[in-house]
Amino acid sequence: MKLDSDKAAEIAASHAQQFTTKRPTVPALEEKMFTPIQCLDHGFVRLVDYMGDDSAIVQAARVSYGAGTKKMRQDRGLIRYLLRHRHTTPFEMCEIKLHVKLPIFVARQWIRHRTANVNEISARYSVLDNEFYLPSPEHLNVQSINNKQGRGDALTEAQSAMVLEMLKRDATQAYQTYSDLLGEELGLARELARMNLPVNWYTQWYWKVDLHNLLHFLALRMDAHAQYEIRVFADAIGSLVKEWVPHVWEAFQDYRMGGAFFARQELEMIQAWLKQETPSFEDSGLSKREWVALCKRFGRATGLEAK
Amino acid sequence: MKLDSDKAAEIAASHAQQFTTKRPTVPALEEKMFTPIQCLDHGFVRLVDYMGDDSAIVQAARVSYGAGTKKMRQDRGLIRYLLRHRHTTPFEMCEIKLHVKLPIFVARQWIRHRTANVNEISARYSVLDNEFYLPSPEHLNVQSINNKQGRGDALTEAQSAMVLEMLKRDATQAYQTYSDLLGEELGLARELARMNLPVNWYTQWYWKVDLHNLLHFLALRMDAHAQYEIRVFADAIGSLVKEWVPHVWEAFQDYRMGGAFFARQELEMIQAWLKQETPSFEDSGLSKREWVALCKRFGRATGLEAK
Amino acid sequence: MKLDSDKAAEIAASHAQQFTTKRPTVPALEEKMFTPIQCLDHGFVRLVDYMGDDSAIVQAARVSYGAGTKKMRQDRGLIRYLLRHRHTTPFEMCEIKLHVKLPIFVARQWIRHRTANVNEISARYSVLDNEFYLPSPEHLNVQSINNKQGRGDALTEAQSAMVLEMLKRDATQAYQTYSDLLGEELGLARELARMNLPVNWYTQWYWKVDLHNLLHFLALRMDAHAQYEIRVFADAIGSLVKEWVPHVWEAFQDYRMGGAFFARQELEMIQAWLKQETPSFEDSGLSKREWVALCKRFGRATGLEAK
Amino acid sequence: MKLDSDKAAEIAASHAQQFTTKRPTVPALEEKMFTPIQCLDHGFVRLVDYMGDDSAIVQAARVSYGAGTKKMRQDRGLIRYLLRHRHTTPFEMCEIKLHVKLPIFVARQWIRHRTANVNEISARYSVLDNEFYLPSPEHLNVQSINNKQGRGDALTEAQSAMVLEMLKRDATQAYQTYSDLLGEELGLARELARMNLPVNWYTQWYWKVDLHNLLHFLALRMDAHAQYEIRVFADAIGSLVKEWVPHVWEAFQDYRMGGAFFARQELEMIQAWLKQETPSFEDSGLSKREWVALCKRFGRATGLEAK
Repeated sequence: MKLDSDKAAEIAASHAQQFTTKRPTVPALEEKMFTPIQCLDHGFVRLVDYMGDDSAIVQAARVSYGAGTKKMRQDRGLIRYLLRHRHTTPFEMCEIKLHVKLPIFVARQWIRHRTANVNEISARYSVLDNEFYLPSPEHLNVQSINNKQGRGDALTEAQSAMVLEMLKRDATQAYQTYSDLLGEELGLARELARMNLPVNWYTQWYWKVDLHNLLHFLALRMDAHAQYEIRVFADAIGSLVKEWVPHVWEAFQDYRMGGAFFARQELEMIQAWLKQETPSFEDSGLSKREWVALCKRFGRATGLEAK
Repeated sequence: MKLDSDKAAEIAASHAQQFTTKRPTVPALEEKMFTPIQCLDHGFVRLVDYMGDDSAIVQAARVSYGAGTKKMRQDRGLIRYLLRHRHTTPFEMCEIKLHVKLPIFVARQWIRHRTANVNEISARYSVLDNEFYLPSPEHLNVQSINNKQGRGDALTEAQSAMVLEMLKRDATQAYQTYSDLLGEELGLARELARMNLPVNWYTQWYWKVDLHNLLHFLALRMDAHAQYEIRVFADAIGSLVKEWVPHVWEAFQDYRMGGAFFARQELEMIQAWLKQETPSFEDSGLSKREWVALCKRFGRATGLEAK
Repeated sequence: MKLDSDKAAEIAASHAQQFTTKRPTVPALEEKMFTPIQCLDHGFVRLVDYMGDDSAIVQAARVSYGAGTKKMRQDRGLIRYLLRHRHTTPFEMCEIKLHVKLPIFVARQWIRHRTANVNEISARYSVLDNEFYLPSPEHLNVQSINNKQGRGDALTEAQSAMVLEMLKRDATQAYQTYSDLLGEELGLARELARMNLPVNWYTQWYWKVDLHNLLHFLALRMDAHAQYEIRVFADAIGSLVKEWVPHVWEAFQDYRMGGAFFARQELEMIQAWLKQETPSFEDSGLSKREWVALCKRFGRATGLEAK
Repeated sequence: MKLDSDKAAEIAASHAQQFTTKRPTVPALEEKMFTPIQCLDHGFVRLVDYMGDDSAIVQAARVSYGAGTKKMRQDRGLIRYLLRHRHTTPFEMCEIKLHVKLPIFVARQWIRHRTANVNEISARYSVLDNEFYLPSPEHLNVQSINNKQGRGDALTEAQSAMVLEMLKRDATQAYQTYSDLLGEELGLARELARMNLPVNWYTQWYWKVDLHNLLHFLALRMDAHAQYEIRVFADAIGSLVKEWVPHVWEAFQDYRMGGAFFARQELEMIQAWLKQETPSFEDSGLSKREWVALCKRFGRATGLEAK
């Protein structure tokens, strides 16, 4: 990721500005404002604005007149309680605004999170830059066999080189055509010419979201099943949230990311094991895939190996 | 509206705090932070937090790297253009958080604006204070005859006195019962006891909303057809928005509050009048009520008087 | 719940109507259309319309050209997979519309589910009937000591009688005043007079929601921690969903209602127990309340009794 | 648009099915169910399901027990009143579900309408067909000079031929690469290979939306300023809405599509003209572009020509 000097100067100017405010302020997060966090080859996430902090959640939950409690420990306890019991509205009282540069195919997954505010650059209005995503070789994998929407093993070095060559060649060709369509000779409308660009092209948007919906986004997109290319962005945002609302982040790790949901039948199996019973797959009422995953998680034999 | 000394002290402490931030900051709005603006007899609106300013709208609309343009006049022009052409997403990039104390029947209208974040005090959890709304005598009106959901003329002084006496008597009785139900002898659960309180009881909430949805709220609730009791709150919020985003406020007056929508048939009538034609009610394709309202607005005879 | 004869006739007429359609249709649910299911003393839920069925979920998840698969078993499997893995969008493809009559304080909880469509009768426009909620004696409980927003033991018979007498007296008085305020002598505007009615008054609305958001509503409102008065309505709606989308209902029981989420620390405790370890409360990293609940669920000693 | 025989058979089977229902049913719309309406070269819109009709709006607005009024004329009047006065909730009581096949760049505009339910085919899960959008020659235009996001004059025949040749060549190349990436030799994961496909590729989704939000979509996307490629889809959907809720459609033409909003300053100009005054551009308080547009609409001289 390289920014041209104009943009770098604008960012530096924003970062240097200092104002006086009565609003809740998080010094550790202020340090991170405006500076891009690189994501993939040309993308970034940068923090443009934020509203609220850990205390603001407490304050809203209590509908209080002042600025949360003075006692840090009580705030932490309430935040943990609220997150554990899936209270949502107090977390909606914090808001964050980001400037993101990302490939179109990532943007297409991201936009499905509807409860957010978005301003995207318009390729009807502006000519897009010649920037497209090329994976680094270690992130090129074959189609997974088990997981219909996932990746399997890495490609060989030779395969990777070939894939990157093919992607690069087509992208270069696509942009050349785009430029020619827009050029003086043809002068095609921008809203038409852009149709030639592939979905690994970079776009940009301002994205604003409340903390509750952001945590939901992160829970899905930091997950191991999320596509690598969106996970990179989720991780970058996570590094901001950690500074912003540290009590929430800790609770989020304990009660969401580090936890797990078990179905009725799975609970019954756990109960049985704890009573020293040895239920079989047939007893479980689970699908085979569910049974295997459950046994694996708790280090139990599936009883299916011999068959 | 009288605040007890604890709450007043908490508010004063919040108002006195000073932090350093890199975030967009509006000095004129900072002055208004935390202090309650009285609404009705015991209600208030007070500003708890805000995100963004006029420039933030421009910045988002342009998906820019810096903090809006340097030229004030260009910002104003773009904001006017965006509001006029009903662009919504740039205005969603500003956010405001308010603490509001309001009668339940007002809260019930307000909550219908769904795109907002709300934390309300819970009467399952807390015992409500003995505070209910009594209109001032000049806001007591008879049922309107023309408008099935509006007010007509003022009551006489004697009628007003009688109405207020009746409302006060029942409210006092209701709260006495509420207290007795919660008292030691009966000890009824709070979630049950509260069912005895009338809808003029005061509740409180934290309400957070983006500027686009706030303008929609204000357009509906500052309107002359809105119930007086919610209009008071909308006006108070309007006084904050005016300080917060002055360019938006000016555009909102010109392109929303001060403007009007005309139906196809109304446009045809205006066109005809401008060509010196004198179409009749029968020509208009309008309902009688629509025809009369249109003629009145433009100072034309309806042609219906003689009939 | 008693309906006057006009309304009963209208409902009977709707129930008797028969049309021919190409749309997905659920015969078992058709039987239940329009007829009110009584809830509390004067309330009801009645099914007014629905869109989709189990197959419609499969069809949408596959973006298919036809009407789902022919094989019932595959449909069931996919629905279970989707619900288990918290897919949401396929369930949004079914929609239900209900006519509900409910006390205002229940409506105030219910309306917090924002992703739904609502038309409520307006007390600005209409005069409300003289119908208010009085709990049956067995649902009158004292305030819970452990749970700040719950109920404890039942009242004594004498206490119940006294409570009901007080509630009835105030409600009767409130409605008398309401009628007097609206009467010829005073003629107060409806939007003002209604402020005297308590929140146990019955209101009515049309409520339309998609199946995903409905399941979320049911998970929260059928839960033992929900207030009894809203649980009654959730149960009534559940009885409709069971007929409407039986595969979804079965999966919902297994993967949502019958299951449980465990935090990181709780998972560690379960793992330890399964390895025959005996971690203490101090080892657990849980709050005392969390530790006790976890031990209780799995029939383990807390190790705290002796202290 | 050509459907392979399997899909055509599935559609025919759906179209042939007949069920009995008590739900509101619109015979004229039933005729149109399931059959694709062609849009662009390979796209379509087809009606999969619907809920409600004109009467359902009336019924919800009145929170009534029966099926709307018997008198058609009263229903029409109320619908017109509700739409004119921008009531929204009664129109949310109708719902429609569509299966749409559309280019990705159209899908990217469309998805910005957030209040809708969507299931899109996943290119992580499925291999996309070799179908891309090529405009017909008469829809190839140069970039507009006045409108930064619009089209100007048509290309010459020679230019059109060249543009189509270029688009076709790149699309063909992109799909060949896509197939090679997925092929046995490389076996690249689908979620990676798809990044090579341009945004004129066809995707498909199920889209479900309520009538209020659909009308908002149509007002924006049937507008002359919408990009042609999305307007085609909006027009197709409009042709369904016209059959579905004819009273709403009529009111929508009169009060939304055929009407216009005027700003405060524009209203003042109209008032002045009606009083036979001749205000100048300088008097108007409008921007030059606004002044010219207003004068043009009402056939007035701008007074700017001579300058």
